[in-house]
Amino acid sequence: MNAQTGRQLSLNAFLHDTGHHEASWRHADSSVERVGDITWYQEIARTAEAAKLDAVFLADSPAWYGTGYRPSHEFEPITLLTAIATATERIGLVSTASTSFYEPYNLARLFSSLDRISGGRAGWNIVTTFSEDAARNFGLDATPSNEDRYERAQEFVDVATLLWDSWEDDAVVADRPSGDYVDVSKVHAIDHVGRHLKVKGPFNAPRSPQGRPVYIQAGSSNEGRAFAARNAEAIFTAHQTLSDARAFYDDIKSRARSFGRNPDHVLVLPGISPFIADTAEEARELYEHFNGLTVPAYGLDQLEKMGGVSLRHLDLDEVVPIEAFGSAGNVLDNSRSRKQVIANILERDRPTLRQLLHRLAGGRGHNVVHGTPVQIADTIQEWFENGAADGFNVMPPLYPQLLDAFIDRVVPILQERGLFRTEYAGDTLRDHYGLPRPDSVYSADLALASGK
Amino acid sequence: MNAQTGRQLSLNAFLHDTGHHEASWRHADSSVERVGDITWYQEIARTAEAAKLDAVFLADSPAWYGTGYRPSHEFEPITLLTAIATATERIGLVSTASTSFYEPYNLARLFSSLDRISGGRAGWNIVTTFSEDAARNFGLDATPSNEDRYERAQEFVDVATLLWDSWEDDAVVADRPSGDYVDVSKVHAIDHVGRHLKVKGPFNAPRSPQGRPVYIQAGSSNEGRAFAARNAEAIFTAHQTLSDARAFYDDIKSRARSFGRNPDHVLVLPGISPFIADTAEEARELYEHFNGLTVPAYGLDQLEKMGGVSLRHLDLDEVVPIEAFGSAGNVLDNSRSRKQVIANILERDRPTLRQLLHRLAGGRGHNVVHGTPVQIADTIQEWFENGAADGFNVMPPLYPQLLDAFIDRVVPILQERGLFRTEYAGDTLRDHYGLPRPDSVYSADLALASGK
Repeated sequence: MNAQTGRQLSLNAFLHDTGHHEASWRHADSSVERVGDITWYQEIARTAEAAKLDAVFLADSPAWYGTGYRPSHEFEPITLLTAIATATERIGLVSTASTSFYEPYNLARLFSSLDRISGGRAGWNIVTTFSEDAARNFGLDATPSNEDRYERAQEFVDVATLLWDSWEDDAVVADRPSGDYVDVSKVHAIDHVGRHLKVKGPFNAPRSPQGRPVYIQAGSSNEGRAFAARNAEAIFTAHQTLSDARAFYDDIKSRARSFGRNPDHVLVLPGISPFIADTAEEARELYEHFNGLTVPAYGLDQLEKMGGVSLRHLDLDEVVPIEAFGSAGNVLDNSRSRKQVIANILERDRPTLRQLLHRLAGGRGHNVVHGTPVQIADTIQEWFENGAADGFNVMPPLYPQLLDAFIDRVVPILQERGLFRTEYAGDTLRDHYGLPRPDSVYSADLALASGK
Repeated sequence: MNAQTGRQLSLNAFLHDTGHHEASWRHADSSVERVGDITWYQEIARTAEAAKLDAVFLADSPAWYGTGYRPSHEFEPITLLTAIATATERIGLVSTASTSFYEPYNLARLFSSLDRISGGRAGWNIVTTFSEDAARNFGLDATPSNEDRYERAQEFVDVATLLWDSWEDDAVVADRPSGDYVDVSKVHAIDHVGRHLKVKGPFNAPRSPQGRPVYIQAGSSNEGRAFAARNAEAIFTAHQTLSDARAFYDDIKSRARSFGRNPDHVLVLPGISPFIADTAEEARELYEHFNGLTVPAYGLDQLEKMGGVSLRHLDLDEVVPIEAFGSAGNVLDNSRSRKQVIANILERDRPTLRQLLHRLAGGRGHNVVHGTPVQIADTIQEWFENGAADGFNVMPPLYPQLLDAFIDRVVPILQERGLFRTEYAGDTLRDHYGLPRPDSVYSADLALASGK
C-alpha cells in the first residue's frame, strides 16, 4: 500500500485477439492460429489473475469490421467471459454491450447470469455504438444521433437497474414446509413506460452477487461525459498526454460531484499500450517493427471509421493538414472524442500521414508507449499521482508475450512501490475497484429513508 | 446397435432446476439450496455425458413465472450452457430462445459463440413465446397472434441462417506475408429486407464448427407443425399416449417429405418424466409422494398460463367437465397444442380437478410414467419401435436422483437391447443426432449447382 495515501492502482487487461496493435497477427510470434480457441483466452485470463489484475475487458460492436486485413472477434463477449469465469476465481469480467441494439430484458439476463456464474465479477461497459455498420444490422439505415442514442442509453440503464433490483436481496425464502419459495411481496414489477422503452418486469431471477454489474462507460463526447458522470463507476478513456488526461480526469470528477456522487466511486482508467524491452532503444525498435507490419489501406479505413475523416487523397509521406480533423466539411460521423485525440496529435506533432497511421496502429488513439520496465512503471506512477488516472486499461500490443512482459517486469515494480496489490482483498469486481454493493432501490430500508 | 434396423435412440436430459415435478424443490432430498450454483448444473451435465446422452436441454421464457410457489431459473440459458460447455467434452447443449423477443444479429452471435466454445455442440430450440408476461417485457401490451409470431419466426430463421452462412467455411486465410487475414470475396452481406426484419450483415465471425446450431422446435399447433416440418432437425413434443404420439410422428414426417426433406433428418423426441423404483408399487408411491407435495394454487395458475383456461370455480374433488378445454368462451390465449393434450386427458380419464392437477404437476402435459427400470425401458422401446418416437427428452422429476436412476438402471437395459450407444460416434451434436453439417448457402459449389 502506498504509504502516503493508501490509494491503489486498478489495472485491467484489455483483451483483443492477437493483441492491440492492428498488425500484431502478422508478427512471426503471434498466436493467430488460436484466436478461435477458447482455451487461449482462458490462459491469458489466468495469467492476468495470477498477477492480481482487477479485470479482463472486451470491447465489442455488433458488426463486422468490413476488412480483410485483421482478425475479427470470433466470440461474442458475454459467452467468452462466461467461459473465462469458469477457468478463473477472482478476476473481474467486463463486457461491452450496446444500449442501442439490445433489448434491456435480454441484456439484463445475460449480465445477471454472468455475475452469478462468476460469483460477482461482472462489469458492463455501456456503449451507444456509433457504427453505421451496426445500425444496419438492426433495422436502421443510419446511426441515430448522439443525443438520441444517449437518451435511450439513460432510459436503458434506468430500466436495467430496476430489473436487477426488482428482486430484493432476501426475496427467496425456499421454505419447504409452507411451499413458499419466494416472498412475492419482495419481487416488484417495474412498470416502465418511457420514450424508447416499455418494460413491465419483474426480472425473472433473484438478485445477483454484486446486486448489479459494475457500470462502466467509455464515451468522451459531451453527452458521453455527462452520462458517465451520472452513471459510471469506472470510465475507460483514451489520452495521449498527461495534460489531456488531467483535464479529462478533473472534468469527470467535478461532473460526478455535481450529480451528488462520491468521485472516488468513479474510477478513471485510461488505456495504455506498452512495448517493453530491456533498453529504451530495443523498445523503440520493437514498436517500429510492429508499425512496419501495418497495411496502409487498413489504417485509412480505420481512420474513416474511427475519426470520421477520409485522408485517402494524401500521399503517405505528406504532412497531414492541421485542420483535417477540425473541418466540418470532412466529417463523416459524430465520433467526436476520438477525433479530438487525433486533432491534438496533428497540432502537437505535425505528422506525415504514414506517421499518423503508425501512431494510431498501436491503440486506435490510446496511449502507445515504449520503454524499459522502469520507464513504463514511471509513466504509470506519474499519471496516477498527478491527477490523470486511478489506474489503467492495459492494452498489450501482442498477446500473450507483451502481457507477460508487463506482468513479469512492470507489475512487480508497481508492487514494490506500494502502488498495486500483491493479493486480492475481496472476491468481487466491486471489491477490486473499491466500490460499494448497491442496495436494491426497492429495499424496505431505502423506502423508509425516503419516507415511503 | 439394433440388429434389425441399426436405428438408435436419441436421449436428452431436459434440465429444470430441482427437477421437472413442480413440487420437487419441496422434497426432503431436493437440492434446492444449489439452484443458484453453476457447479451443480455442470455436475448433472457430466453425469449425462458419462452415460453418452445426446444433449442437455433448457426451456426458457423471458419473463417471471409470477408465482412464489417454485424456483425460477436463476441462469440465462446460453450462459448456463456455456459454463456447462467448459466442464464437458461431447454432450450437446440445447437452448431455447425466442424469435419474437430477440434481435437476430444478437442471437446469432450467442449461438455461434456457444458452438465455437463447445467445439460444435450447440442446438437452438426455436420458440415464438406465447406468454403475455414476456410480451410486456418487450414493449408490447399483448402477445402477437400465432400467425404473426410464426411469420416473424420464419423470417428470423432465414436471417439467422444467412448470417451463420455469410462467412464461407474457407473465408479465413490468415496469410502473414500478404497481410490478408480474410478472403473478403467469401464474406457476404445478406441484405435482408422483410416484413419484420431488416439486416444487412455480414456476420462478424467465421462460420462455427457445426456451420449452424442444430435447429429444434417444440410447437404443436398447425403453424408450429408446418414451421417444424420446414425448419426443424429435431422436434420436442408432449404426448400422453402411444397413439397420440404416432399420429403426431406420422404427420410431421409426412409434412417434412412434402417440403422435400429427408424425414430421418427430422427427429421426433417426446418428453418422458420417469419415476423409477425397484417395484411397480414403490414407483407409484414415489409418484404419489411428489403429487402430495403440490400446492393447488400453483397448479391452477399454471393451468391458466399453459392451457389458457381457468378452473378456479371448480371444487378440487369435482370431475372436470369434458368440454372445459374445448369451449371457446374459456380460452384465455392461443396455446393450442398443450390445450389439446389436456382435452384428451379429460375425454379419456374423466379426472377430478385434483387428479388433473396431479397429472400435470409432473411434466406440464408431458408423459409422466412410473415403474421398474424394465417397465420404463419397455415403454421407451415400444414408442421407438412403433413409429411414435426417434428418442426422448428425459425429464427427471427430481435432480439429480431420478436422472441417476434413469442412467444407472434404464440406460444399461436400452444399451443391452442394442437401442442406445455405449460410446459417442462423433464430437458434435449433429454427429449424435445423425444430422449432416450444412454447407453455406453462399458456397461456390452450391452456386455452381444452382446454375449461378
